[in-house]
Amino acid sequence: MAADKLVYSFGAGTKGGDASMKTLLGGKGANLAEMSNLGLPVPPGFTITTEVCNAYYKIGRKYPDGLEAQVNAALADLEKSSAKTFGDPANPLLVSVRSGARASMPGMMDTVLNLGLNDETAAGLAKLSGNERFAYDSYRRFIQMYSDVVLGLGHGVFEEILGSKKDMNDYTSDTELTADDWKAVIVDYKRAVEEHLGAPFPADPREQLWGAVGAVFASWMNDRAIFYRQMHAIPESWGTAVNVQAMVFGNMGDDSATGVAFTRNPSTGEKRYYGEYLINAQGEDVVAGIRTPKPITKIAREAQREKGLSLEEALPEVYGQLTAVFDKLEAHYRDVQDIEFTVERGVLYMLQTRNAKRTAPAAIKVAVDMVAEGLITREEAVNRIDADSLNQILHPIIAPSYKRDILCTGLPASPGAAVGKVVFSADEAEKLAKAGQSVILVRDETSPKDIHGMHAAKAVVTARGGQTSHAAVVARGMGRPCVCGVTALRLDEHARSFTALGRTVKEGDVITVDGAAGQVMLGGADLVQPDLTGDFETLMSWADDFRRLGVRANADGPVDARQARDLGAEGIGLCRTEHMFFDPARTPVVIEMILADDKAGRVAALAKLLPMQRADFVGLFEVMAGLPVTIRLLDPPLHEFLPKGEEDVAAVAAATGVSPADLMRRAEALHEFNPMLGFRGCRLAIAYPEIYEMQARAIFEAALDVKKRTARAPIVEVMIPFVLARRELAIIKESVIGVAKAVFAEAGDSVEYLVGTMIELPRAAVRAGEIAEEAEFFSFGTNDLTQMTLGLSRDDAGAFLEHYLRAGIFEHDPFVSIDQSGVGALVEIAVAAGRKSRPGIKLGICGEHGGDPASVRYCDKVGLDYVSCSPFRAPIARLAAAQAALSRGQTGS
Amino acid sequence: MAADKLVYSFGAGTKGGDASMKTLLGGKGANLAEMSNLGLPVPPGFTITTEVCNAYYKIGRKYPDGLEAQVNAALADLEKSSAKTFGDPANPLLVSVRSGARASMPGMMDTVLNLGLNDETAAGLAKLSGNERFAYDSYRRFIQMYSDVVLGLGHGVFEEILGSKKDMNDYTSDTELTADDWKAVIVDYKRAVEEHLGAPFPADPREQLWGAVGAVFASWMNDRAIFYRQMHAIPESWGTAVNVQAMVFGNMGDDSATGVAFTRNPSTGEKRYYGEYLINAQGEDVVAGIRTPKPITKIAREAQREKGLSLEEALPEVYGQLTAVFDKLEAHYRDVQDIEFTVERGVLYMLQTRNAKRTAPAAIKVAVDMVAEGLITREEAVNRIDADSLNQILHPIIAPSYKRDILCTGLPASPGAAVGKVVFSADEAEKLAKAGQSVILVRDETSPKDIHGMHAAKAVVTARGGQTSHAAVVARGMGRPCVCGVTALRLDEHARSFTALGRTVKEGDVITVDGAAGQVMLGGADLVQPDLTGDFETLMSWADDFRRLGVRANADGPVDARQARDLGAEGIGLCRTEHMFFDPARTPVVIEMILADDKAGRVAALAKLLPMQRADFVGLFEVMAGLPVTIRLLDPPLHEFLPKGEEDVAAVAAATGVSPADLMRRAEALHEFNPMLGFRGCRLAIAYPEIYEMQARAIFEAALDVKKRTARAPIVEVMIPFVLARRELAIIKESVIGVAKAVFAEAGDSVEYLVGTMIELPRAAVRAGEIAEEAEFFSFGTNDLTQMTLGLSRDDAGAFLEHYLRAGIFEHDPFVSIDQSGVGALVEIAVAAGRKSRPGIKLGICGEHGGDPASVRYCDKVGLDYVSCSPFRAPIARLAAAQAALSRGQTGS
Repeated sequence: MAADKLVYSFGAGTKGGDASMKTLLGGKGANLAEMSNLGLPVPPGFTITTEVCNAYYKIGRKYPDGLEAQVNAALADLEKSSAKTFGDPANPLLVSVRSGARASMPGMMDTVLNLGLNDETAAGLAKLSGNERFAYDSYRRFIQMYSDVVLGLGHGVFEEILGSKKDMNDYTSDTELTADDWKAVIVDYKRAVEEHLGAPFPADPREQLWGAVGAVFASWMNDRAIFYRQMHAIPESWGTAVNVQAMVFGNMGDDSATGVAFTRNPSTGEKRYYGEYLINAQGEDVVAGIRTPKPITKIAREAQREKGLSLEEALPEVYGQLTAVFDKLEAHYRDVQDIEFTVERGVLYMLQTRNAKRTAPAAIKVAVDMVAEGLITREEAVNRIDADSLNQILHPIIAPSYKRDILCTGLPASPGAAVGKVVFSADEAEKLAKAGQSVILVRDETSPKDIHGMHAAKAVVTARGGQTSHAAVVARGMGRPCVCGVTALRLDEHARSFTALGRTVKEGDVITVDGAAGQVMLGGADLVQPDLTGDFETLMSWADDFRRLGVRANADGPVDARQARDLGAEGIGLCRTEHMFFDPARTPVVIEMILADDKAGRVAALAKLLPMQRADFVGLFEVMAGLPVTIRLLDPPLHEFLPKGEEDVAAVAAATGVSPADLMRRAEALHEFNPMLGFRGCRLAIAYPEIYEMQARAIFEAALDVKKRTARAPIVEVMIPFVLARRELAIIKESVIGVAKAVFAEAGDSVEYLVGTMIELPRAAVRAGEIAEEAEFFSFGTNDLTQMTLGLSRDDAGAFLEHYLRAGIFEHDPFVSIDQSGVGALVEIAVAAGRKSRPGIKLGICGEHGGDPASVRYCDKVGLDYVSCSPFRAPIARLAAAQAALSRGQTGS
Repeated sequence: MAADKLVYSFGAGTKGGDASMKTLLGGKGANLAEMSNLGLPVPPGFTITTEVCNAYYKIGRKYPDGLEAQVNAALADLEKSSAKTFGDPANPLLVSVRSGARASMPGMMDTVLNLGLNDETAAGLAKLSGNERFAYDSYRRFIQMYSDVVLGLGHGVFEEILGSKKDMNDYTSDTELTADDWKAVIVDYKRAVEEHLGAPFPADPREQLWGAVGAVFASWMNDRAIFYRQMHAIPESWGTAVNVQAMVFGNMGDDSATGVAFTRNPSTGEKRYYGEYLINAQGEDVVAGIRTPKPITKIAREAQREKGLSLEEALPEVYGQLTAVFDKLEAHYRDVQDIEFTVERGVLYMLQTRNAKRTAPAAIKVAVDMVAEGLITREEAVNRIDADSLNQILHPIIAPSYKRDILCTGLPASPGAAVGKVVFSADEAEKLAKAGQSVILVRDETSPKDIHGMHAAKAVVTARGGQTSHAAVVARGMGRPCVCGVTALRLDEHARSFTALGRTVKEGDVITVDGAAGQVMLGGADLVQPDLTGDFETLMSWADDFRRLGVRANADGPVDARQARDLGAEGIGLCRTEHMFFDPARTPVVIEMILADDKAGRVAALAKLLPMQRADFVGLFEVMAGLPVTIRLLDPPLHEFLPKGEEDVAAVAAATGVSPADLMRRAEALHEFNPMLGFRGCRLAIAYPEIYEMQARAIFEAALDVKKRTARAPIVEVMIPFVLARRELAIIKESVIGVAKAVFAEAGDSVEYLVGTMIELPRAAVRAGEIAEEAEFFSFGTNDLTQMTLGLSRDDAGAFLEHYLRAGIFEHDPFVSIDQSGVGALVEIAVAAGRKSRPGIKLGICGEHGGDPASVRYCDKVGLDYVSCSPFRAPIARLAAAQAALSRGQTGS
C-alpha cells in the first residue's frame, strides 16, 4: 500500500523531493523539486505520488486514507508561499493540475490549467490583473478544458456556442471577442454543461481540484496512454503522479512571455542554445501554432531571417537570467535539457526541465562532446545512446529539403532510403541491376525464390505481409530498405504496372522508398549517405572496449560478409546455405537432386552442386580469413525449391527438361500441412545423408583452398539445424567428421573446425545436456524457438498479434524482442545444462533477436558468448552489448 | 565391465544360475538353470553371460579377458557330466549353441545345432548310434547351418548341390537319400565352402565353438534383431547370452521324439495340456512343417479326428513323466509354461521352459482362473495382462472360420472388423446410415468435414495417410475400424468406384474391413462380437480397485459418452466443441459467423448457433450426470470451416446463399502457412470474445437444464485451449465467469464449474506457475505439446518418421507413446510449478497418449490425477493405471 507520505511540496524554499525520486514523484514532479532545491524560480506547488495512483486502482478507483488531509495541508502551505488563497475573490490562487509519470509520455495524459476560477474569482482576477479580457478568456478556457478532461464533455458543444457567438458578431477570429463577449459565452457554456450533464459546472475550487486529480489518475488508463506504454514498454505498474502548481501567466502583457528551449540543438547536437518563445502568450499558444514563435537567440533569428525580436533582444535581462539557468541546469544534470519557462511581468519562472529527446546524430555528438568537456565519462556517453536509434544513421536517408510526393504508405519494415526503377520480378531486377541500373522490386509478397532479386534491388516494396514477413526479414538482413503491407497497392503483373490510391506506376518508372517512414514516393529523391566516421567511430570504439559479448553477423555471401566486417562484426554467426541453392543458375541441378529416385541419382546431382557450393564458401572465407564462420547446413524442406503455380512449373519444366507432370507429382508428394514442423533441417540428412556430406566437403575444400592461398584459414563451425536429440546429432557429426578426415587426407593439410547445433526446438533445450555431449557449440535459433515455444507461426501471427499487444498479453512482438520469460526459460535451461555437460561450450544466438538491444542485454545477462545479427544491426548489437556489460558493472576490457 | 564370473554351468546337479538371473543369463539360460535346480532332466551345458556380449561390443567385437579360460573350464565340466568328449571320435560330445536374451526374441537371432561334428566324430556318431544315415544327415545339416550362420554363406549353394544330387538319382524327397548319398553330398558341401570362402570348413570343434559364439553375439546386431527390438522397445544394452548345451536326439528311432507343449491352451486359456510332437524327429522338423505333428493328449487327438497316436498313447510312460513336469513347472513358475522337450531312446529331456505367450482372452482367463486356484494373487493377475492387448477383445472380430478374399491392405489404423456397403462421401454415408444400412466410407483422406460420415459409417478406409492421420485418430476415437494408407487403392469419384490390384469395387458393393490386420476384403464376413462380461469384468474390477489414476474418456456427443461409461470411464476429459460446428446442418450459420464484417454480425450468427450448441451439451450432460465433463472451447482456425476446392465452394455457396467469390476471398484472407501455429485456440477468443461467450452460455444453460430435469448436474470444467500466458487466460476466464453469473442470475440457480486450461504449448509449461494462478485445472494436450516440443507436425511426420525409428533416434512414434524425456520434461516442470502455485490443482491428460499403457504409467508416475482417452481405450487405461499403481507398491484402494 501507499507510503505514509503521499504528498510532497516544492518551491518557495520547501525541501520536499529531488531529482532522484522520479519513481515516486514522476519525472516532472522530481525535476520541479530539484530545480526548486537548486534555487531556481519555480512556482510553488505539490506532487501527489505515483503510489497514490497505484493504490487508487488497487482499491477500485478510490483515494487511499489520509490523502485528503495531506492535500489540504499542502494546499495550505501553497497558499502561504504564494500569498494567495484558493477560492478567495480578493486574491485568488489558481493552479495547474498535470500528470507526470516516471517516463515522459508527451500528450498522452490530461492537464487542467487555471483551476480555481469561478464567477467570483474570475472577477477578482480581472480586478487584480487590471485585464478583464484576460481574466474571462482564462475562465472560459478553464471551463472548456475542465469539461473535456474531467467531465467528459467533448469540445463540440463549446465550439458550437463560440461559433454562433462569432457569427452573430461577424467575428472571424477568437481575438476579436471582448471581455463582455466572453462573459456571455461563459453563461452559455455553463448552461450547456448543466443541460448535458444534469448538474451545474462546479464552482467550488476544492471540488474542481479533486475532480482534476481523479481525471489525471483516470487518464493513466485511457486508450492513448495504454497504447503509448505498449509501444514504449512502460509498465502499467509505474503509475502517474499529479502535480498541482500555482499558475503563472505569460499572457499578462508585453513584459510577459512563454517559451520552450534546449540547452543544445536537439537535431544536430551542436552546442548552442536553441528555443522559441512568444511575447504575451500562454504555454498552449506556443504549441497550438496560432501565432508563430520566435527564436530565443539573436544569432538564430538572423540565420532564419526572422523579423520579430528574439528574446535575447526583446527582454535582455530575462534572457541573461535564462541562459544562466541553462548553464546551471546542464552542469547539474550533466545532459542536454529541454526546458519550459514563463515570464510574468518581467519575472522568469521555470515550469519544467527534463533531459532532452534528440536525434541519433545529436545524441552521439552530445555524448562525445560532453566527454571532451569533462562533463561525463566514456561509460556514461556509451550509456546515453539508445542503441536502436543507430538505425537512423546506418542507412542513407532522404535529404531533408526534398519535397515528398507520397504515393502510398505501408509498414516501416527495414530502414533506409533508396531510389530506383520499378520492377515486378526478381529475374528482371537481377537483369537490370547487372546492366548497372538501380531498381526497386515491387511484389505482392516475396519468397525464398526472390532472394537474388532482393539482393539486386535497392529496395523492396510488398503489398502484403507484416514486419516479420519474409520480405521484411530478408530485407533487414541485407540492409535493403523495405516497406511491407502496402494495402493500397494493387499489382497488375500482366500490365506490368501497379496502382495506388488512383495513380498508376509502370515498370521502369522511378520511385523513392523510405523504409524508416514506410513511404513510397513518386520520383527520385536526393539521398544523404551515412557518415560512420568521426563521433560515431569514437563512440563505437568505446563500446567495443566495454562489452563482453562478441558480435557476429548473419551473412550468406562475400558482399554481406564484407559489409558485416565494415560494421564491426567479428565473424559470421549464421551463413544460411539454402540461399545458395535458390540461385536460379542452380535450380535445374537442385531439382534434379530432389527428383532423383534413389541415392545414386541424388549423389550424381550433388556432385554437380559441389563445385558451386565450394566457390560460395571460398568467397566467404576469403573475407573472413582468421575469423569464425558458422555455416548452417541445408534447413528448409525440399518442396521450397520446387515451382508452385502452373506458370512457374511450366517455366521450370522448360529450363530443366523435366516434365511438368513429374514436377507437379513430386511437389504434391512433398506438400506439407505445416512445413515449419515438417521434413526439414537435419531430418533431411537423416533420410538423405548425401546432402550434408556434399556440403561438408564443399566447406572443408573451400577452407583448405583459402588457407593455401592466403595462409589464413577461417575457423569453420559446421552447424546442424533442427536437432532434437543427441543421437540425431551424433549420427550427422560422425558423417561430417568422416568427410573432414577424407578431405584433409586428400589435401595433406587440415583446418580447425567445430561441429555444433542450433537450439531451436524446445526438446533440444530440455535435452541440451545430452546434446552438448556431441555439440561443440550451441547457437540459439530464437526465431524458430519462439515459433515452437509459443506455437506461433511468424508468417501467420499478423492476424492476431495486434490483439495480443493491445490486450497486454505480449509486451512486444516476440519476434522482434525475445520473450524472456517463456523462450528465455528454455534458453536458460539449455545454457545451464550445456555448460554443465561441456564446460566451455561456445554459446551464441543467431536470428533476428541478435540485433535487438533488449535481447542483446538478455543474452549478456544469461552468459552467452556472442550474438549474431544482420550486418546492418552489428553496431546496434555492439552498443547494446556494451551497455549490458556496464549495467552489470562489468566490462570486457 | 564384465563381472568376474562370465560363464555359468547348468544341468547334472551343478548349481550355477537360477530363474532370477535373467538379466545376466538371458531367459533361456536362466530357465535351464532353474529347471536343472528343480531336478528336472536338462541336458547339461553352460551359459556365457549377457555382460560378455556387452563387453564384446564395447571393446570392438573382441572377447573380454578370462572368457576363454572360463569356457574351457565349463566345457571340461560338461564333458565330465555328459561323459562324452568334445572332438573324441570314440565318444563325441555334440552341442547346440543358442542365443538367449532377457526378453524372448523368437527367430530373431541365430542358433547352431550338432556342433562338434567333423569327418571323424561323424563316423564315431554313426558307430555309437548304430545309425549311419542319422549321423551323416546330422553332419550335413551342421555344415549347412554353420556355413549360413557363422561363415555367412547362404543356403543357395547347398541347395544347388543337394538338388543336383537328387536329380541324378531321380529322388523327389530328402528322405530318399541314403547314408552314402549324404557322405557324397558332404564332400561336395565342404568343397563348395572352400571354393567360396578360400578356406576349408573348420574341422576343429573348438574353432567351431568360438565361431558359433561370435556368430550369436553378432546376431544381436543383425537387422532383424534391431528391428524387433525397436518394435518391442527392448534396449540394445540388454545384450544376449550364449547357451552351449549337450545335444540330445529325438531322431534316434521310434523310442525317440521331440515336441513343444503348453501347460494350458494358449489360445483360449482353457486348463488343459496342449501340445504337439513328432516321433523320431529333431526339433527343427516340428517347426519346419515337413511332417505334421500329432497332439500330445488323447482327448485332443480324438477331438481333431487325428489318426496317428498321441504321445499319451504312444509313449505313456514318457507322457506321465512329462505331465508331472508340466505340473511341477506351472506350480513353480505360477504361470502357463511353453515347453520344448526331446525324448532320446525313451529318456525325457527338457530343453526349454518359458512363460507362454497367449492371446488376450487366454491371458485373462488364465489370470482369473489362477486366482481362483490360489496360485497367484489378484495383484499378480492384474499385472499379467498386457494392457495394450485388450485392444484385441474390445472390438468385433472376423470369425476365424471365414475365408478371406483380400482386396488390398494398408496400415492397421484402428482395430475391429466391420461389414458394409462402399460409399465415397460423408453425406452419402450419413444418408444410407439413416436409412438403416451399414456402410463403409472409402476416401483418399478425411478432414474434419467428414466427421458426420465417419460417425455414420461402420468403418473407414483411406488411400493416403498414416497411423496418426486425421482418419486414423478420429476413427480410433470413435472406435471405428480403420485401414489407412492403402496405396494400391485408386479412387474414381466420378465413376463412383475404386480399383485395387486390378479389381474394381463400385459404390454399394459389400466389403469387409479388418482394422487390426489392415485388410480390406471383398464380400461380407461373419463377425464375432466381443464379450466384455465374465472374466474380463472380474479382472477390470480388480484393476479399478488397485489404480490411483482416474480414467476419463474423450467424447464429443451422447453416443460416445454412453460408450465411454459402458467401458468404465468416470467422466469426460475432452469434449471437442468444433465437431459440433462441422455438422452440415450448421454450416450455413458457421459460415455466416466467419464472413461477418463486424462484431454485430458475428453475434447475430452466434445467437443462431446457441440453441444448437445448448442441445449438444444437454445430450452429453444427461449421460454424464454427476460426473466431471471437460469441455474445450473452439480450437481450430476458422478457415477449417470454409470450403476448399472449387466444387466445395460452389456447393457451400448454393447452400448458404453467399457468393463463391466472397467465400474464396475470405478463405484466402484466412489462409495460413502453418495452421498448427496459427490463429486458433483461445487466440480466436482474444480477437472475437463473442464466440467463447456463446459457448459458455450454451454450456451453463444446458447444465442448468439437466440439473432441473434430473436433479443431477454434471461437474462442468470449461477448458481454454492453446493458452500461453496467464493474462490471456485471465481475460477469458473473466468473460466465462461473467457469462456464468448472468446465466445463473437469469435461472435463479447455479451449477458447480471450474475454468482451466490445456497445457499444450511449451511456453504454457514453463509459465505454468503463473498460469495456475488463474487455471483451476490443467489438462496436458500432449498431441500438440509433442508437435511443438519436437517441431514435428503429426500430419507431415510420415515422410521421415520411419528413418528416425530405424536410426534409433526415436524409440517409438512420439505420437503413440509420450516422449518422456523431452515432452515429459516440460510436463514435469508444469506439474511442479502448477501444484506449487495452486496446491490441489486438478491435473489430467487428454489426447491420444491417454490410452497408451506406457504413457499411462508415466502419468501415474508424475502424479497426474487422471488420464482421458478414446472410449474404446478406457479399459486399457484402467488396466495400465492399476499396473502403474502396483509397480509403485501403492494402490488406489
